[in-house]
Amino acid sequence: MSVPSSVTIHSPATVANMVCGFDVLGFAVKEPYDIMRICFTEDTGITIINEDDFNLPTDPEKNVAGAALLALMEELKEPVGFELRINKQIKPGSGVGSSAASAAGAVVAANKLLGDIFSKEDLVRFAMNGEKVASGVKHADNIAPCIYGGVTLIRSIFPLDIIPLQAPPLFVTIVHPQIEVRTSDARSILKQQVLLKDAIKQWGNIAGLVAGLQQSDYSLIGRSLEDVLIEPVRSILIPGFDLVKQKAKKAGALGGGISGSGPSIFMLSKDEATAQEVAKEMKSVFESISLEHHTYITTINTEGVKFIN
Amino acid sequence: MSVPSSVTIHSPATVANMVCGFDVLGFAVKEPYDIMRICFTEDTGITIINEDDFNLPTDPEKNVAGAALLALMEELKEPVGFELRINKQIKPGSGVGSSAASAAGAVVAANKLLGDIFSKEDLVRFAMNGEKVASGVKHADNIAPCIYGGVTLIRSIFPLDIIPLQAPPLFVTIVHPQIEVRTSDARSILKQQVLLKDAIKQWGNIAGLVAGLQQSDYSLIGRSLEDVLIEPVRSILIPGFDLVKQKAKKAGALGGGISGSGPSIFMLSKDEATAQEVAKEMKSVFESISLEHHTYITTINTEGVKFIN
Repeated sequence: MSVPSSVTIHSPATVANMVCGFDVLGFAVKEPYDIMRICFTEDTGITIINEDDFNLPTDPEKNVAGAALLALMEELKEPVGFELRINKQIKPGSGVGSSAASAAGAVVAANKLLGDIFSKEDLVRFAMNGEKVASGVKHADNIAPCIYGGVTLIRSIFPLDIIPLQAPPLFVTIVHPQIEVRTSDARSILKQQVLLKDAIKQWGNIAGLVAGLQQSDYSLIGRSLEDVLIEPVRSILIPGFDLVKQKAKKAGALGGGISGSGPSIFMLSKDEATAQEVAKEMKSVFESISLEHHTYITTINTEGVKFIN
Repeated sequence: MSVPSSVTIHSPATVANMVCGFDVLGFAVKEPYDIMRICFTEDTGITIINEDDFNLPTDPEKNVAGAALLALMEELKEPVGFELRINKQIKPGSGVGSSAASAAGAVVAANKLLGDIFSKEDLVRFAMNGEKVASGVKHADNIAPCIYGGVTLIRSIFPLDIIPLQAPPLFVTIVHPQIEVRTSDARSILKQQVLLKDAIKQWGNIAGLVAGLQQSDYSLIGRSLEDVLIEPVRSILIPGFDLVKQKAKKAGALGGGISGSGPSIFMLSKDEATAQEVAKEMKSVFESISLEHHTYITTINTEGVKFIN
């Protein structure tokens, strides 16, 4: 196997939680994606060059891609040097896995440069160190779909147990209202205790969603996209959320909810025409409350991080 | 379609909860099963004849099969009369859906006699009235697999949403220690509040179990058969439970736990030889504490209630 002198990748946005799958489900989308290029350097260590205007830190320990690479380098037998150029297209803080795209993209690209010596599971493990830098918590519900593609279940973090799930074609409409929701705030407002009866409803729904995805049963997917525990609490951080959801479903969306910890909202549809109707309805809500927003339509990305050269 | 003058059926035992699927998962087994025969009578109403030694009530309103039939009869246009003979082979109170077998069997048999006028979902709805007589609560996690066969998910009771799940061949070892565990007691000792982090673990596991069943991934099924919420509380009602589980898994069982609300314990295995090893280990535990018990090996029953004539 020939080892390339540099590797360029597209690292996609991801939607974590997937309504009833808080902390355990996520899926990758085709767009947006970050563009990253990695090559070896003569000096050891990590050089990060940002090719975008987000002014993210370039100190490897404070940069999510850098932290992920550092974890990978700890398991190499010999010290190496990487130069990583990041052109971020996924807006940080939008709730579609911007930090995961950096962390996952960096280690997937580095692994290719090293001759594919690590497994996907190893790469998830390394990339979770990036998530820790971003939000203080190691989680994999964006990282895993970013690396594996498609819809993934993270049954367990310790030990890591990632299960790729089959899914039928789905169109994804995403609206990003231009407000800030900190992941740490979105986490801290959750109650640590929940009613058993609500938890039962939630696991009935996630079981239904997994079955619906694997059986390509769109109606079952739609019926199962219900979250009685997290969404009622977190949605208060997103103005217009209830109306967006209501109008999107009326326009034909199967269902949807908060993407990750927000503020983006995603809706799944069976076909593109519906996804476009849904986008129109989403826009109308934020226009009516004069909240700046960005709406886009994409599909599920089944390959994850993509090699360009 | 010709309508028979009498219908004889085998109504199988069922295992509810399936470890991480409390209140929402269940599966039917090949054996044991109740034998029931139904025919029309000239007089309207229900006559119940018990052909076994369990001395169950024959007043239709107090008999689980009778209560299920009464619910069915309420939706008929004209009054009819049924005679129902029950030869119960599934010991009441053993935790393998004895009441569900009576309730489900009665309405499936009656529906055949009536010329198949009701859907399976209707029949589940009627049979849940039998469960209400038995335990005070309408639940479908035994009824649904009894009627549909195989493994079923009850995503929701109100409205009823039953999803049959694919599953690979599985051998089931069941041990019934001869103690009494009342369903109402097993329910009342559960905490109404649970930790969110435990609930997340539980829904990661049920998602893994559903994926494992649908993908015929035995290892994933095994890893997902973990219950951090219900089993730790309920298992204290079953002497020797922890040791039975530990020894069964050491003998090669994929996993398992309390069947329904107990006292029976079930273990799943990939092949019959393992299931027999597991049975031996289960027996040894109850022998060592001198607790009378009955052990048997069966498989998943994919057809549910079976017509004999």
